[in-house]
Amino acid sequence: MRDLYTIGIDIGGTNTDIGLVCPKGRCEEVRNLKTSDYTDGKVYAQAIATTISDIMAHHHVDTLQGVGIGAPCGNFMNGTIDSAANLPFAGEVPIKGLLEEILPCKVVVTNDANAAAYGEMVYGGAKEYSNFIMFTIGTGVGAGIIIDGKLLYGSDGVAGELGHTTVIPDGRPCTCGKRGCLETYVSIRGIKETYHNLAVAYQQKEIPDTENSLRLMAQLAHDNDPVALQTYEETAKIMGVAMANAQCFSSPQAFFFMGGVVECGDLLLNPIRKHFEKEKLFIYKNEIPILKSFLSKNDAAILGAAAIAVCEL
Amino acid sequence: MRDLYTIGIDIGGTNTDIGLVCPKGRCEEVRNLKTSDYTDGKVYAQAIATTISDIMAHHHVDTLQGVGIGAPCGNFMNGTIDSAANLPFAGEVPIKGLLEEILPCKVVVTNDANAAAYGEMVYGGAKEYSNFIMFTIGTGVGAGIIIDGKLLYGSDGVAGELGHTTVIPDGRPCTCGKRGCLETYVSIRGIKETYHNLAVAYQQKEIPDTENSLRLMAQLAHDNDPVALQTYEETAKIMGVAMANAQCFSSPQAFFFMGGVVECGDLLLNPIRKHFEKEKLFIYKNEIPILKSFLSKNDAAILGAAAIAVCEL
Repeated sequence: MRDLYTIGIDIGGTNTDIGLVCPKGRCEEVRNLKTSDYTDGKVYAQAIATTISDIMAHHHVDTLQGVGIGAPCGNFMNGTIDSAANLPFAGEVPIKGLLEEILPCKVVVTNDANAAAYGEMVYGGAKEYSNFIMFTIGTGVGAGIIIDGKLLYGSDGVAGELGHTTVIPDGRPCTCGKRGCLETYVSIRGIKETYHNLAVAYQQKEIPDTENSLRLMAQLAHDNDPVALQTYEETAKIMGVAMANAQCFSSPQAFFFMGGVVECGDLLLNPIRKHFEKEKLFIYKNEIPILKSFLSKNDAAILGAAAIAVCEL
Repeated sequence: MRDLYTIGIDIGGTNTDIGLVCPKGRCEEVRNLKTSDYTDGKVYAQAIATTISDIMAHHHVDTLQGVGIGAPCGNFMNGTIDSAANLPFAGEVPIKGLLEEILPCKVVVTNDANAAAYGEMVYGGAKEYSNFIMFTIGTGVGAGIIIDGKLLYGSDGVAGELGHTTVIPDGRPCTCGKRGCLETYVSIRGIKETYHNLAVAYQQKEIPDTENSLRLMAQLAHDNDPVALQTYEETAKIMGVAMANAQCFSSPQAFFFMGGVVECGDLLLNPIRKHFEKEKLFIYKNEIPILKSFLSKNDAAILGAAAIAVCEL
C-alpha cells in the first residue's frame, strides 16, 4: 500500500458516492451525485471529475494513487459498466476511458462484490488472508473470490457469479432465466419466499413485505418464533452446500459476508457455520472462519472501491 | 519451456511409470516399477532414482529440467503423497524430499487431475488457453483448474475437488461420506448405476458389470439402444450443470475431458455440449469449446507429470 490518498466511487442506481480515502483507510469525506440525473456517460464522467477536483482541493491533496470504481456490472478488463439494468445509461459506458481523459491519474472499475472483497482485504477483516471468498447478499447474491491475494477475474472479467450456481436442480425460477440458483434462496427475496412458504405450512401470520421484513424476522427469531428460526435454518443449509462447493473449487482460508441479509449476524451465521461443517469435504482439515465484514455499513462500498485502486494500480 | 529433458512419473496403485520426455514433448522411453513391491518410502524413492539414472545414461542425457510426479493425493505444497487409499505406503510420504536428497535436480508433485491439466496446456490441446478446466473421469472424478496459465492450488494445495461438489441435494451416497456428489453420477460407477436404474425402468437386459461395460454401452448407443442413449443424456445433464457452476466460478475459455468415461467421444460429449449451453448463465457470451484431451491415452499421464516440471520449475 503506497502512502497516497485514493478516491473510491460507489455507483448505484440512485446515488453515486465519491469518497476521499487516506492511506490508513479512513474515509475523509464523501460527496454525492444523483446517478439518475445523468443519461449521458460523458456528462456524468465530467461531473464525477469536477467533484473529485473539489474534494482534493478542499483537503489539500495534490496527487492521488488512483480512482477505484465499484459498479453493478463493472467490467475490470474493459473498464466499462456493461448494460446494468438499474443504471440510466444504455449499453456499455467506458467509464475508465472517459475519466482518464480528464483526470491526471489511473482509474479502475470492477463490480460491487469484487470491490467488497478488495475492501475487506485492504481495510477490513481479511488483511491476514490471501485466499478467501466474500459473499455480498442483498437484492442479489454476488461473490468476490480472492486467490493468492488477487481477485479472480477469469478469462473475460466476469468470474465469481456464485449467486447463479445451481443449488437445487429445477428449483425456484431465477431472474437470470435459469432455475434453482443460489440467489433464489438466499437473497432478500429468496429468504422472504422461504418465510412465506413456511408461514403457510405452519399456518402462521405472514410478516409485512416491506424494507423492514428482514429486521422483523430477526426480531421474531430472537423471540424463538419457529417459522423465523426455520427460515434461517433452511437458508443456511443451502448456503452451506454452496460454500462447501466453493471450497472444493478454490480451497479458501475464510468466508466473509456483507449485505442486508447478514445484518442479523449470528442468527444466520451460526446455522451457516453448522451446515458448512456438515457439508464440507473431509480432506479440508483447516478450520474455516465464517465472518461478517469488519467494515461499517456506511463506509464499506467507498472503501471497497478505493481498495481496488490500492490493489490494482 | 526450456531446452532440457524432463522426467515424468505416473504413480498408480499397481504401477509406477517413469518416462523420459524430450523438450518437444515426445516420450522417449518409459520404465516401470511395481508400486505394490514397496512399502517403505525410502526404498521406493531409491528405486525410482536408480531407474532415472539408468534411463538418462541410456539416452546420454546429462542434465534434467526436473522431475514431475503425478500421484493420487499428490500434494504440491508439501511435496508429499498424502495417505492415498490405493497406495501401499501408510500416512504421508515426503516423496519430493526423499528424491531431492538423491537426485541432482528439483522434484515437483501434484495429483493426477492437475497433472492432466498441465499436460494438456504444455503438450496437448490447451496450448492456446490460459484459463481452462480439465475433468478427469474414470473411477473417480478429478479436476485441474488453470487460471491465468497457472494451476489453482488454493490455500492448502487441495483445490479443484469438483468431483465432490454437490449436484443433487440428498442424492446418491458418495465414498467421501456426503451425498449427491458429481462423482456419484458421472464416474464409471455412477454411469453404470444410471444404466442399471434405467434398464430396470425400461425392463431391459442389464449389461455385464465388467471392465468393458462402458465400451458395451457405447456400442449399444451406436445401435440406438434407448437405455444407453438415455444414460448418456442423464449423465450429460448433470455434467452440464456442474460445468455451468464451474463457469460461474472462474469463467474458463474451454473445458477438457480425459479418462475412461470419455473414450466414447462425442456420444457423451455432444449431449454434454447441449446441456452446458442450456445451463450456462446468459452473461457468458463467448463460445466455450468442450473437448476430449488431445494426448494419447498411453502417454497422457507421463506427459502430464513431465509438464508439471516444465511449468513449476
